[in-house]
Amino acid sequence: MSLPLKLQSPSPIGLQTQIFEQVREMILQGRLRPGEPLPATRSLSEQLGISRNTAALAYERLAAEGYIETRHSVGTFVSMQIPEHALHAATRKDIAPARTARRTKAVSGHRDFRSQALVNPHGRRLVADFWVGRPDPDSFPRKTWARLILRRLLSAGSALTEYRDPSGLIDLRQAIADRVRPTRNIATNADEIIIVGGCQDGLNLVSRLLVTPGSTAVVESPCYQGAAFLFESFGATIVPVPVDDRGLDCRRLPDVRNAIAYVTPSHQYPLGVTLSLERRLGLLAWAAETNSYILEDDYDSDFRFHGAPIAALKGLDRTGRVIYLGTFSKCLGAGLRLGYVILPPELVERARHMKTLMNNGQPWLEQATLADFMQSGGYEHHVRRIRKLYFSRRNALLSSLSEHFPGGETIGDEAGMHLAWRLPRHLPPASKVESLAIEAGIGVYTLASGAAVNFDASAESDRFLVLGFSSLKEREIAIGISKLADVLAKGPTSPRRSKSARG
Amino acid sequence: MSLPLKLQSPSPIGLQTQIFEQVREMILQGRLRPGEPLPATRSLSEQLGISRNTAALAYERLAAEGYIETRHSVGTFVSMQIPEHALHAATRKDIAPARTARRTKAVSGHRDFRSQALVNPHGRRLVADFWVGRPDPDSFPRKTWARLILRRLLSAGSALTEYRDPSGLIDLRQAIADRVRPTRNIATNADEIIIVGGCQDGLNLVSRLLVTPGSTAVVESPCYQGAAFLFESFGATIVPVPVDDRGLDCRRLPDVRNAIAYVTPSHQYPLGVTLSLERRLGLLAWAAETNSYILEDDYDSDFRFHGAPIAALKGLDRTGRVIYLGTFSKCLGAGLRLGYVILPPELVERARHMKTLMNNGQPWLEQATLADFMQSGGYEHHVRRIRKLYFSRRNALLSSLSEHFPGGETIGDEAGMHLAWRLPRHLPPASKVESLAIEAGIGVYTLASGAAVNFDASAESDRFLVLGFSSLKEREIAIGISKLADVLAKGPTSPRRSKSARG
Repeated sequence: MSLPLKLQSPSPIGLQTQIFEQVREMILQGRLRPGEPLPATRSLSEQLGISRNTAALAYERLAAEGYIETRHSVGTFVSMQIPEHALHAATRKDIAPARTARRTKAVSGHRDFRSQALVNPHGRRLVADFWVGRPDPDSFPRKTWARLILRRLLSAGSALTEYRDPSGLIDLRQAIADRVRPTRNIATNADEIIIVGGCQDGLNLVSRLLVTPGSTAVVESPCYQGAAFLFESFGATIVPVPVDDRGLDCRRLPDVRNAIAYVTPSHQYPLGVTLSLERRLGLLAWAAETNSYILEDDYDSDFRFHGAPIAALKGLDRTGRVIYLGTFSKCLGAGLRLGYVILPPELVERARHMKTLMNNGQPWLEQATLADFMQSGGYEHHVRRIRKLYFSRRNALLSSLSEHFPGGETIGDEAGMHLAWRLPRHLPPASKVESLAIEAGIGVYTLASGAAVNFDASAESDRFLVLGFSSLKEREIAIGISKLADVLAKGPTSPRRSKSARG
Repeated sequence: MSLPLKLQSPSPIGLQTQIFEQVREMILQGRLRPGEPLPATRSLSEQLGISRNTAALAYERLAAEGYIETRHSVGTFVSMQIPEHALHAATRKDIAPARTARRTKAVSGHRDFRSQALVNPHGRRLVADFWVGRPDPDSFPRKTWARLILRRLLSAGSALTEYRDPSGLIDLRQAIADRVRPTRNIATNADEIIIVGGCQDGLNLVSRLLVTPGSTAVVESPCYQGAAFLFESFGATIVPVPVDDRGLDCRRLPDVRNAIAYVTPSHQYPLGVTLSLERRLGLLAWAAETNSYILEDDYDSDFRFHGAPIAALKGLDRTGRVIYLGTFSKCLGAGLRLGYVILPPELVERARHMKTLMNNGQPWLEQATLADFMQSGGYEHHVRRIRKLYFSRRNALLSSLSEHFPGGETIGDEAGMHLAWRLPRHLPPASKVESLAIEAGIGVYTLASGAAVNFDASAESDRFLVLGFSSLKEREIAIGISKLADVLAKGPTSPRRSKSARG
């Protein structure tokens, strides 16, 4: 009686594990049947050339899990307790896989869903990549962060090992409440704030409270993908409302009750326009009249290049209609996964429970470090520093564009980390420009490529490109735009020609 | 013409902001009407005793946001562009608040939901607190973690500033794939793993893919609250299946198709029993026959005190029915908010998209640090060290219990961070024992208090307490149980008596 085992050595899988798994497999597949005797550990160890202890430990484990049983001074046998029909059903390969492709959908009952583009869809390295929403990597305050993180880590107590308040570290919530008053004109307190894992987690929190199948989600047209796709995944009816040079046209808001309206009033995504005061008031009036909520995504409001930042819509809200989403992904970095939601009082309690149910809150160490960074004044200093940097980069982009493309028009360049560029008339449509540019190693993006949903199928909407400037040095910007001009001057066939010339 | 402004100084709110907000408020409330003139900055500065520059900046901001307009060499006026009806609608306080309490529910359409208990519900400091699921705070490898985190932080490149693969850092997914083979007998690869923000985020990920209103969610009875409440919040029909000393009784699984079954086979939560091999096979057979998925929550499988850990159910799955949830909350700490889901191949793509839609993935720095900790062997060493520590603590608890309560019975003590204790017959029901103990400063918990849902309303189910031992020193355990014995020996009225004696 010997077992047909094949051991590999050396192997990352230990010998004991290999024996265990192979014997188990023989039992599960019915090649060893209930009651069948197994070799003694001594003969197994001789057969395989392994230590008797290894064989004994593998048997112990098989016995502990109920596959085999040892009868004292008689021997070791495959367990009689394993019901044969169960074995077969569990291991028959013919039951499930054939039906799986259809099945996933059927089980879920969910419609197919889409997710937002986060990283450059073009795998290869570009000479200059105007991808949106990327902070300057060199500006992250590494040394200060290291100092603060170490101090918190070494005095952590039980903060790393235990669950904490899922709505977030009180120090951080307080620091945020203290900051949004002077910078965003929002009068709030730590109790109304919930720390989230970036804007997207915040959008989910709000959606799980307010969006149900068949409910109405108003979005800007064009709109950030992460919001539109999410509402769609919850079965909402999406109502896009056009954006013009004063932002979302509130005269075209739908006449439905209990809706949610997702807006980016400070710097519309992707077009960059600022919602006018008249429109802001109109939007608030609509929410009050229709019993709806407004979800204000204030993703890059800290980068206003002239004058003070425009006050948040939330600061105008007197009727508890506005939910405010803030993020640290733009001022510090998306790698931190930290943001916050400021809620109307009536939603706070439900939101805290929902945040618990969703993910028990965010990691402690990064919250604590950020709280210290804010309270020390380091954060404000950092924001001022990178605002200046982005201002220079924006200026570099504006002057390169006007130098090489005198007939173009930029929109939304008073603020933010990107601008929208309306192509000069003589150039091909934006989608064509994008593909020609990518071919030549320059990343420029249409609205749809730049993580926006473009509801407008007209030719006019294919005249826009979004250009992120915050992570590119001035020199890179100049080279990128000049190269883009070369490519477009040469026309569609040139890149291929130049390629074959090289090849 | 002067404005009735009241400035506070010193104040955390700057003077410019105070002027801006107060003038804005007067305009929004109609106390200053469209077209009405405002004082010149010079007279405003004199009136308020502030610098002219401060007054000018406040006006600039009001003008930038469209509240006022300056007509050259004529003066400054409240903007004519603000539609009066909008002002009124946006600021009328009578519209919304009165209806809000009812309204939240109506808008959401969601049933009321509950969330799991995470922290000790008793605010006050206890002498000994046997709360569940808490790792030993002193054992967190602070110094190693500090060294690794610093190295990653200082060489972070753009990892902190940019979005990354939402399914998680490849280094960490690889380290997990490498580990679950020898420790859990799961053959997988990095592509099938998604890093999540702890088990709860993983439960949400799976639920958003597979749980819909009216679908069936099988749970163990009793069951972890975080799972049952979550399925409930998605509108699932909860089917509790009783757990006995061999785990979930698979003969009582419901005869429905396309269900999901949430189980804790290694160490049932809260009872601590291990699912027998026969039952495991039965459960897999049920899933194959009914076209259902099994969600295996393997929360504390690393702490088995005798022999090797029991192999995961996922390792037995030949038909792609088992989704595996692992967490670092128990081995390292809940403050990290890191866990992982191992998916059947057919669900991977949808799950990646859903993770993106949910929260764009977890923070980079903690993932990177953990990956290094695992790859260096430090993690395995840490697990061995705390397993020994918890073994001693468990032993201390067992010997204290048998010393003071000879008639009791412990369940699920071969593994984990807590055990279930069936009270000796002479003691009052568990809920009574809990309240007497808490009164005396000792935290012991019924199934329902200990973050479990107890579907069984029989008197027998109120004979169990859960006792977490992993975060208490042996001395604290001995004192806690001895004090508990004192309290229970004295009977129900004693604590009050001893209190008044002190007072």
